[in-house]
Amino acid sequence: MKWTKRSLICLEHLSREEIVEVLDTVSSFKEVSHRAIKKVPALRGKTVVNLFFEPSTRTKTSFELAAKRLSADVLSFEVSTSSVSKGETIADTARNIEAMKVDCFIVRHPGSGAPYIIEQAVSSAVINAGDGCHEHPTQALLDLFTMRERFQKIEGLRVALIGDVRHSRVARSNIWGLTKMGAEVTVCGPPTLIPMGIENLGVKVEYSIEKAVKEVDVVYLLRLQKERQQEHFFPAASEYRNLYGFNAMRAAIPSGTFLLMHPGPMNRGIEIRSEVVDLPNSMILPQVTNGIAVRMAVLYLTISQV
Amino acid sequence: MKWTKRSLICLEHLSREEIVEVLDTVSSFKEVSHRAIKKVPALRGKTVVNLFFEPSTRTKTSFELAAKRLSADVLSFEVSTSSVSKGETIADTARNIEAMKVDCFIVRHPGSGAPYIIEQAVSSAVINAGDGCHEHPTQALLDLFTMRERFQKIEGLRVALIGDVRHSRVARSNIWGLTKMGAEVTVCGPPTLIPMGIENLGVKVEYSIEKAVKEVDVVYLLRLQKERQQEHFFPAASEYRNLYGFNAMRAAIPSGTFLLMHPGPMNRGIEIRSEVVDLPNSMILPQVTNGIAVRMAVLYLTISQV
Amino acid sequence: MKWTKRSLICLEHLSREEIVEVLDTVSSFKEVSHRAIKKVPALRGKTVVNLFFEPSTRTKTSFELAAKRLSADVLSFEVSTSSVSKGETIADTARNIEAMKVDCFIVRHPGSGAPYIIEQAVSSAVINAGDGCHEHPTQALLDLFTMRERFQKIEGLRVALIGDVRHSRVARSNIWGLTKMGAEVTVCGPPTLIPMGIENLGVKVEYSIEKAVKEVDVVYLLRLQKERQQEHFFPAASEYRNLYGFNAMRAAIPSGTFLLMHPGPMNRGIEIRSEVVDLPNSMILPQVTNGIAVRMAVLYLTISQV
Repeated sequence: MKWTKRSLICLEHLSREEIVEVLDTVSSFKEVSHRAIKKVPALRGKTVVNLFFEPSTRTKTSFELAAKRLSADVLSFEVSTSSVSKGETIADTARNIEAMKVDCFIVRHPGSGAPYIIEQAVSSAVINAGDGCHEHPTQALLDLFTMRERFQKIEGLRVALIGDVRHSRVARSNIWGLTKMGAEVTVCGPPTLIPMGIENLGVKVEYSIEKAVKEVDVVYLLRLQKERQQEHFFPAASEYRNLYGFNAMRAAIPSGTFLLMHPGPMNRGIEIRSEVVDLPNSMILPQVTNGIAVRMAVLYLTISQV
Repeated sequence: MKWTKRSLICLEHLSREEIVEVLDTVSSFKEVSHRAIKKVPALRGKTVVNLFFEPSTRTKTSFELAAKRLSADVLSFEVSTSSVSKGETIADTARNIEAMKVDCFIVRHPGSGAPYIIEQAVSSAVINAGDGCHEHPTQALLDLFTMRERFQKIEGLRVALIGDVRHSRVARSNIWGLTKMGAEVTVCGPPTLIPMGIENLGVKVEYSIEKAVKEVDVVYLLRLQKERQQEHFFPAASEYRNLYGFNAMRAAIPSGTFLLMHPGPMNRGIEIRSEVVDLPNSMILPQVTNGIAVRMAVLYLTISQV
Repeated sequence: MKWTKRSLICLEHLSREEIVEVLDTVSSFKEVSHRAIKKVPALRGKTVVNLFFEPSTRTKTSFELAAKRLSADVLSFEVSTSSVSKGETIADTARNIEAMKVDCFIVRHPGSGAPYIIEQAVSSAVINAGDGCHEHPTQALLDLFTMRERFQKIEGLRVALIGDVRHSRVARSNIWGLTKMGAEVTVCGPPTLIPMGIENLGVKVEYSIEKAVKEVDVVYLLRLQKERQQEHFFPAASEYRNLYGFNAMRAAIPSGTFLLMHPGPMNRGIEIRSEVVDLPNSMILPQVTNGIAVRMAVLYLTISQV
């Protein structure tokens, strides 16, 4: 099968075959970043717009680098200075930018669904770089790629997603991606941070981290987004750390070798202790490296459809 | 005749022949943005500096894209973090940047005349991207180009400029450009927003929008710049909308086909109603598209003189 | 000898031979900025990251232009929007960016030593673009280059550094560089702004500006960093200007021809009077021009070692 979408809004609406095609494409882009001259002309003369309504240096930079390594021109729209603050709708903003003949929008927005609204307004490619508590599809794709690279497969892997599942678009995208690819997903965290009924997405719920990590291939720690915590969810960061923080003691629990993953940026000492960050099975930096290749693949696949 | 200026500060000081030469040059650049590879090497190895003392993502982006499509390198000077906030004069700032061997300054400033001060301080090209309530010459040039593209001429066109003429550098540049090119210009808006004596620029004044749009080829709506409104100019935005907002009813008044233009960003529901934004005669997005080509032409013509 | 370091953190740890090699390399890059096409492919496909934890448009722009003239891709990390504000350590931030396969970090930080911490965390090149009150090595190198260009040598030059030596990383780097190269350095300023024991660095201290500039080849005025002045250091800016500001009267004191230098941005009317800024012996703009060539050389030398 062939990739036919001009946009990547969510993993919920991708088929397993589409996910596999992205992952296969990633492999061919990965080696570009390891060359002395890290550049291919695949998107020369194309214009990619970073349209970020929420600060995110890391994801923005990853997309920007990916685009530049494909020789595209990259524009950055900073929201605080943009016409949005002058009262324009996001659809008008996008249509106006598109009138400058751009090829792709990379959209981050605090509101769930904003990339979809923009997709409806334009005929360029649109890539969701994280929308509210909805999805962050390129993060999940790089996570899937990282797992497949180490285990040669995703089907049958046992993955524990640990932490603030409720507010995590990373968790949501990973749940869609992992279950479609045939992995067994367990979510684990304080009951207040696990959405009711999440079992309907095909995952297991486990409130004890010790039990959740016992039989796993991947321990995936979610970032505790302090900025999203009302004090109601748990009494204090220290309590979260004690009950759900991953440390050397808990790293000793799994019965076999496991990968340790985190989407970054880490809160050292809260959801992850420094002592486990640099374990040989820590995939935290390889995830970042794979992020570039995944975004190159997604840019290439979507823009090719415009 | 040939273009001989290293700068574009205002339309007031351009001759009709110079305006025609810019418009003719635009045509040859316009098709670049429609190619698969939107890039020509005309300004390769040249450095263009966006020196913006006032936020403006749209104009800045348009210039940036124009420069990149000519293969120039683009630098952005953000004023809040620049040395200007450390007490340096704008002439010193410009001279210092010029010492880095740059080829062109694109200047936006809240004070009228700032691009002229910078032009005096440097020997690079200087392009006014909007100064105070003075001029915004590339906006007017793209408006002229858009009208000429549709009507094959500007001479004799009847143009109604509607709204806050007082604070509008867009209106001022269009008045200079349109009258030089032989169009008939009517300005229309609340009396408090029409400068006294504006008839001396060769335009008619009409306070009733219904009368102003009766016999026109172009209805040009100015943006209501809420940030510049003291409450004294009119009682409330809703009153402005009722008296001067353009809507379906008013769009039915003109006796013939007319173009609807707006410099963006629009305040939907204030100076323009959503129902008319997407009319087939709306030039709002074509204006944005032409903006890139106009700025490519202006960059090319001015930098060629340095 | 050959340059063998992947980083440039301070002049304190460079040998005279290393400094000479940088200055010799600068000469070969200087002419690039005078070409019609100001670009060489030396660093094509390399990625340079501006990691600025403190605003500095001038230095950032100088590095950015230098990198672009070497055909590198440049990324800018703005600290206020970066993950650092989400609680990440600077070492983690740097390691994460490095995982995207970048080649060089240009670091500015309000804390002395930050570039060194980052150098320890990564294996990419690291260039200090100013850290706290510690060093600003590329500024001193461009100052050295400017002096050598005019006098054909640095050894034996008599240099007076005048102003706020206490808070000046520029002064500190120049002291290390000048004394290693055999110049005779006098520091001069209000006693409260001259660190105790600075003679141990091999410089003379003189509190009278009239005496300090009597027998000099270079008058180097330091910027009065108003943002760093507690009111305790001197009673008022006007008093500083009277006692230490450089003006026409003081410019007449030196017994021979001398160069007037300033790292910029100038406070006209405080440490420097407008009447002397444009004297023929003023090197203020040539310093800026040389800054590009020096940074091209440093980027080239360090990245070549990675």
